[in-house]
Amino acid sequence: MLMISKRGQEMPPSPIRKLVPFAEAAKKKGIKVYHLNIGQPDIETPAPMLDAVRHIDFKVLEYSHSAGNESYRRKLVDYYAQCGIAINHQQIIVTTGGSEAILFGFMACLDPGDEVIIPEPFYANYNGFAVAAGVHVVPITSYIETGFALPAISDFEQSITPRTKAIVICNPNNPTGYLYSREEMETLKAICLKHNLYLFADEAYREFCYEGTHFSAMQLEGVDEHVVLMDTISKRYSACGARIGALVTRNQAVLDAVMKFAQARLSPPGLAQVAAEAAIDLPAHYFDATKEEYRKRRETLVTRLNAMEGVFCPNPGGAFYAIARLPIDDADKFCQWLLEDFSFRNQTVMLAPATGFYGTAGLGKQEVRLAYVLNTTDINAAMDCLEAALKTYNNK
Amino acid sequence: MLMISKRGQEMPPSPIRKLVPFAEAAKKKGIKVYHLNIGQPDIETPAPMLDAVRHIDFKVLEYSHSAGNESYRRKLVDYYAQCGIAINHQQIIVTTGGSEAILFGFMACLDPGDEVIIPEPFYANYNGFAVAAGVHVVPITSYIETGFALPAISDFEQSITPRTKAIVICNPNNPTGYLYSREEMETLKAICLKHNLYLFADEAYREFCYEGTHFSAMQLEGVDEHVVLMDTISKRYSACGARIGALVTRNQAVLDAVMKFAQARLSPPGLAQVAAEAAIDLPAHYFDATKEEYRKRRETLVTRLNAMEGVFCPNPGGAFYAIARLPIDDADKFCQWLLEDFSFRNQTVMLAPATGFYGTAGLGKQEVRLAYVLNTTDINAAMDCLEAALKTYNNK
Repeated sequence: MLMISKRGQEMPPSPIRKLVPFAEAAKKKGIKVYHLNIGQPDIETPAPMLDAVRHIDFKVLEYSHSAGNESYRRKLVDYYAQCGIAINHQQIIVTTGGSEAILFGFMACLDPGDEVIIPEPFYANYNGFAVAAGVHVVPITSYIETGFALPAISDFEQSITPRTKAIVICNPNNPTGYLYSREEMETLKAICLKHNLYLFADEAYREFCYEGTHFSAMQLEGVDEHVVLMDTISKRYSACGARIGALVTRNQAVLDAVMKFAQARLSPPGLAQVAAEAAIDLPAHYFDATKEEYRKRRETLVTRLNAMEGVFCPNPGGAFYAIARLPIDDADKFCQWLLEDFSFRNQTVMLAPATGFYGTAGLGKQEVRLAYVLNTTDINAAMDCLEAALKTYNNK
Repeated sequence: MLMISKRGQEMPPSPIRKLVPFAEAAKKKGIKVYHLNIGQPDIETPAPMLDAVRHIDFKVLEYSHSAGNESYRRKLVDYYAQCGIAINHQQIIVTTGGSEAILFGFMACLDPGDEVIIPEPFYANYNGFAVAAGVHVVPITSYIETGFALPAISDFEQSITPRTKAIVICNPNNPTGYLYSREEMETLKAICLKHNLYLFADEAYREFCYEGTHFSAMQLEGVDEHVVLMDTISKRYSACGARIGALVTRNQAVLDAVMKFAQARLSPPGLAQVAAEAAIDLPAHYFDATKEEYRKRRETLVTRLNAMEGVFCPNPGGAFYAIARLPIDDADKFCQWLLEDFSFRNQTVMLAPATGFYGTAGLGKQEVRLAYVLNTTDINAAMDCLEAALKTYNNK
């Protein structure tokens, strides 16, 4: 009998995708399912990106440079400059999605048995990359009552051990939508300096801030050696399927180590780099319309949720997610029930149970994550379903 | 002082790419460099693949299924059937290049400290994926005198320990070009059955066989649990930059485990899957012209090499590589010298020192790998350079 590896056994299945079979069964019964469960926006990928791909004129789809096409990296320098981030093209390694940037960062900076601190709830796939790298995730709880603000310094310091090597921060946050303030980022800087930790900053949703402005970890001063930015074009340009991201840092040793992992996998996707490069030339106002659309959706979603009896949803400052506390016993059971046993006007809604985003067992049982990736009409229809569902569920 | 991880330090740099700065310097001096050092073919990517990309009509570049688009996987079933490999679409997980298939296979089947046996010389990036997975590569030497045939069973059995979990075979072989016979594949099967090992089969060059036919590890009977195929479209369709591969196995537990790693990174590249799917519809005779071209190149290369004094190059049965033994002291020094200090009619040739393909230190010092990815005119010019270089080098 051949065995799967221990890490293959420990690897967590996607908590978001485990309900997919129930959604498929509902659809087979003719029920319309509103997908608020996953961060796949319905926003159109900018036409100039797809047009650039339509007009490729090379004859051989060759390997690109392992760090990504130099022309693209040079353009990214301009993009980051506009975000207030000063770097050069040799400080950028283009990756296969933000996913690979996270994996490369973990691989190059952390060893098996090392610990990485992450405020929970957090993006569930950090668990997967941690298992792949043999690293232990140490969660520090943030709370819905404060809108999931950064936990207190004392919470971090109590969790730091000799094996702690890094903190991961996702800003604006998936799954909470929380936008960290400059003061909170400075707090993280102080912790990282004091305890000699890497600060891995996942800024996939940088453009989507609705209250205040984004302050990047790369804008912190005096921590050039510590900060490793994990980035992606997936959400920014609604190009999730492109699989183009970037690892950015001013730490030369990290760049050198990551480059060896990048060389082993040869190169990031070539066709998608053409689309990604075209994105840099989008007019500056491109994000205005998209942001305005998300802002409307957020308002619709949060207003509707807070109007429901027993529901609490803090207003998220960024990204396109919100976490709501519902008057339910068990979010996993409830989300499955929504798909399996419930419909309202032949419609239902698919949500992500928040339990999958907590590292601490037992947390998030009354919480769900909602991605406002549908238009306001659909969000309203989804909220009609949820409102009716909560009445039914609690009267069962 | 922040530290790079141990695995980040141990990660080997690409032995092929380390000479790149010397090639760039030569070009800056106005010297033409013939690149026989890397498996980047000059063959045109089939027009229908690039045309399919030019005609994309979707508006949102969404995540695909984590296992790859079902439409593509179903078409791959037909492709494999034509290769004599019977599988269904649920036994295929589309990956980001063959690279990711190798990494996923190692991650899902092997634990840190486990050992994997690989006949050397072998594809150098196996080392990188092994370091990423914490796995030890145990090389078993194959020899130029036998054309790099499979080592004897006794060599395998002497290397098997309680930590041995798998054998990797690349067929046809990169870097040797050796095409394993059915008998040799049956030998591997017997070893894997007797010692309960996985058989990881890298068949990136399946189509390029010039003597005899390819016998896939997936055609072995009675080892469905053992065989994991790592595949890629990179070489088959000269689409290295697409980054589309596949992991194929009939072992359900491996599929389940790999699927979790696939979900963590969300999906393989979307645009490239469009190109890959179009490739399956290429006419059956597509490979005829390509194979004929490679066959001519091989003959030119091998004939020229063996006509040089003191040079021996076994005739490779497949892929588009050959390893030659040269009358030199040190392949690394020689290959660098070719770029740094030599030119012939203002031209020179870039080769890959074979040392980078051996796991055993000290082996391959008189050997180089040549990739016949240039047309015969260029190969002849490159051989003129090499012939002149050998005379000069040894009279220094």
